[in-house]
Amino acid sequence: MPTIDILKLLNFTPAKWDDGALVILDQRLLPEKEEYRRLITVAEVVEAIRNLSVRGAPLIGVVAAYGLCLVYDPQNDDDFKSSCRLLRNARPTAVNLAWAVDRMNAVRVDALRNENLRHKLINEAKKIHDEGAEMCVKIGQHGNELIPQTCNILTHCNAGALATGGIGTALGVIYAAHFSGKKIHVWVDETRPILQGARLTAWELSKAGVPYTLISDNMAATLMAQGKVDLVITGADRVAANLDFANKIGTYGLAVIAKYHHVPFYAAAPSSTFDPHCSDGKCIEIENRAADEVRMVGAQMIAPSGAPVYNPAFDVTPHELIAGIVTEKGIVKP
Amino acid sequence: MPTIDILKLLNFTPAKWDDGALVILDQRLLPEKEEYRRLITVAEVVEAIRNLSVRGAPLIGVVAAYGLCLVYDPQNDDDFKSSCRLLRNARPTAVNLAWAVDRMNAVRVDALRNENLRHKLINEAKKIHDEGAEMCVKIGQHGNELIPQTCNILTHCNAGALATGGIGTALGVIYAAHFSGKKIHVWVDETRPILQGARLTAWELSKAGVPYTLISDNMAATLMAQGKVDLVITGADRVAANLDFANKIGTYGLAVIAKYHHVPFYAAAPSSTFDPHCSDGKCIEIENRAADEVRMVGAQMIAPSGAPVYNPAFDVTPHELIAGIVTEKGIVKP
Repeated sequence: MPTIDILKLLNFTPAKWDDGALVILDQRLLPEKEEYRRLITVAEVVEAIRNLSVRGAPLIGVVAAYGLCLVYDPQNDDDFKSSCRLLRNARPTAVNLAWAVDRMNAVRVDALRNENLRHKLINEAKKIHDEGAEMCVKIGQHGNELIPQTCNILTHCNAGALATGGIGTALGVIYAAHFSGKKIHVWVDETRPILQGARLTAWELSKAGVPYTLISDNMAATLMAQGKVDLVITGADRVAANLDFANKIGTYGLAVIAKYHHVPFYAAAPSSTFDPHCSDGKCIEIENRAADEVRMVGAQMIAPSGAPVYNPAFDVTPHELIAGIVTEKGIVKP
Repeated sequence: MPTIDILKLLNFTPAKWDDGALVILDQRLLPEKEEYRRLITVAEVVEAIRNLSVRGAPLIGVVAAYGLCLVYDPQNDDDFKSSCRLLRNARPTAVNLAWAVDRMNAVRVDALRNENLRHKLINEAKKIHDEGAEMCVKIGQHGNELIPQTCNILTHCNAGALATGGIGTALGVIYAAHFSGKKIHVWVDETRPILQGARLTAWELSKAGVPYTLISDNMAATLMAQGKVDLVITGADRVAANLDFANKIGTYGLAVIAKYHHVPFYAAAPSSTFDPHCSDGKCIEIENRAADEVRMVGAQMIAPSGAPVYNPAFDVTPHELIAGIVTEKGIVKP
């Protein structure tokens, strides 16, 4: 698959190392504004992860790795360890943060007395980034085997180039299918409350020229009842050993609805999203976020001010609802 | 049940006849602004129904009836018939429009040679309005029998005082339960794309002092998995003979999810919402609305401009997914 062409076509870089700084695309402003920001401290990186300037489990792993290249004095134990802790805890659900921090820490332990420590850290972060991109390509190739010549695919949230170090996981599969000449069409769930589908996935797919139609999340079931969805594919933020997985809020309901309509449901995730310490979905911590994410859309209030809100950012889909998880190593079935 | 007290507590009037004009609360501006508008032509009434200044199946029936009191010359056949046609076709899904227009037309046929025609039309419209209010009270009483002393109820869209001539259908049940001293809490689906839950139901419930929590539609399934929903109740826009019913988009998916979690699902609707000409859900016409309802929230773009959109305003829930429909005559079971 012509990976480089897809990334060229998309023509954005959600995160990259640039001369001592981490440059990120501020995803909060999409699709209206394409604005890059230079981060030069760990605190700035932590805040960018927390406030969703960068998001997507694989991408925040990459960003955390680059974040550790910004530690003021990486030889200093306190400095490095507190940075690790801050980055690891920036958000609780995606396991990629811990995974990337652990990899970076291992490099530091190996190289502690080496004068080139910062250089080695930067190399490791770039390697995490490059490997992530490579995993996306492989996920695309494996996932493409599931896609018939003509296919209506529904996706939720954004598991694309904006969410990873490469072309995406769920969207990696979609790009692979599209650019291998299949006739696909994508139903894009807008994905309230943060609207990653409407703001990010629609934007990515239009840049790539993949045919799509935007819907409110409420419309997925009626499309399935009409036979207009052949397959659902989403990303994942953490996968347990039994293949239960956490993903963007709404994924679980979508999986229930897909099951009811006999529509196969797949998640796509690199192995860095699998948590070996997690036997099943019950042990995945779910992040609750601020009430105003639900009460407001951008600067616009959509509810009485002070309305009580419940805002879990993720839900857990049990493995019995899915057909499989597409990884860089192949398709894992429950 | 102290109906008048509830309406006093709510302290708004979604539609009323006032000295030769129809005064409506412009629901598009809620919850930010509580603004009333005087409509004095049929065309204005048709436009107010179309653009959702007034909405809710029972309420638009009431509004269409008042609309026919504004016909310039009600003795004139062409004038009256074209007004009937315009009002009947203002929106396609709720059958209450046709039902109210038919009732008003019957009065005209009876009274055609009578000098008091306009007076008789106004009386009939007020009767439709009053009967609607009375039906809400009875729906509340019957529905209250379903509600245990402590209950977490989930509702979708707005089937309250803003959607009817009285205290509401689904919210009529909720008000009846709350004001009869039961300990209830309401999960309010925000109900994209028009956000009738966030904008209208949350506003109504806070005015009435009913405990509630606002959620994105995506969160209903995870609440049910956590055992936090005891019962779902929604309104209905048209009920077929076999109890299949159309309601706000998202209702069908919610019913599938409720079934999966063994949570009983009820709709509530007055008999004016039952369509005797409709044997099952297949014959209910579903309105498709403008793409910008999905692409925008208020004045804010949330997707690439020009993003292709599918925007059905309603879906059909088959009777096998529901426990029953609460009407003013009692609870009908499939």
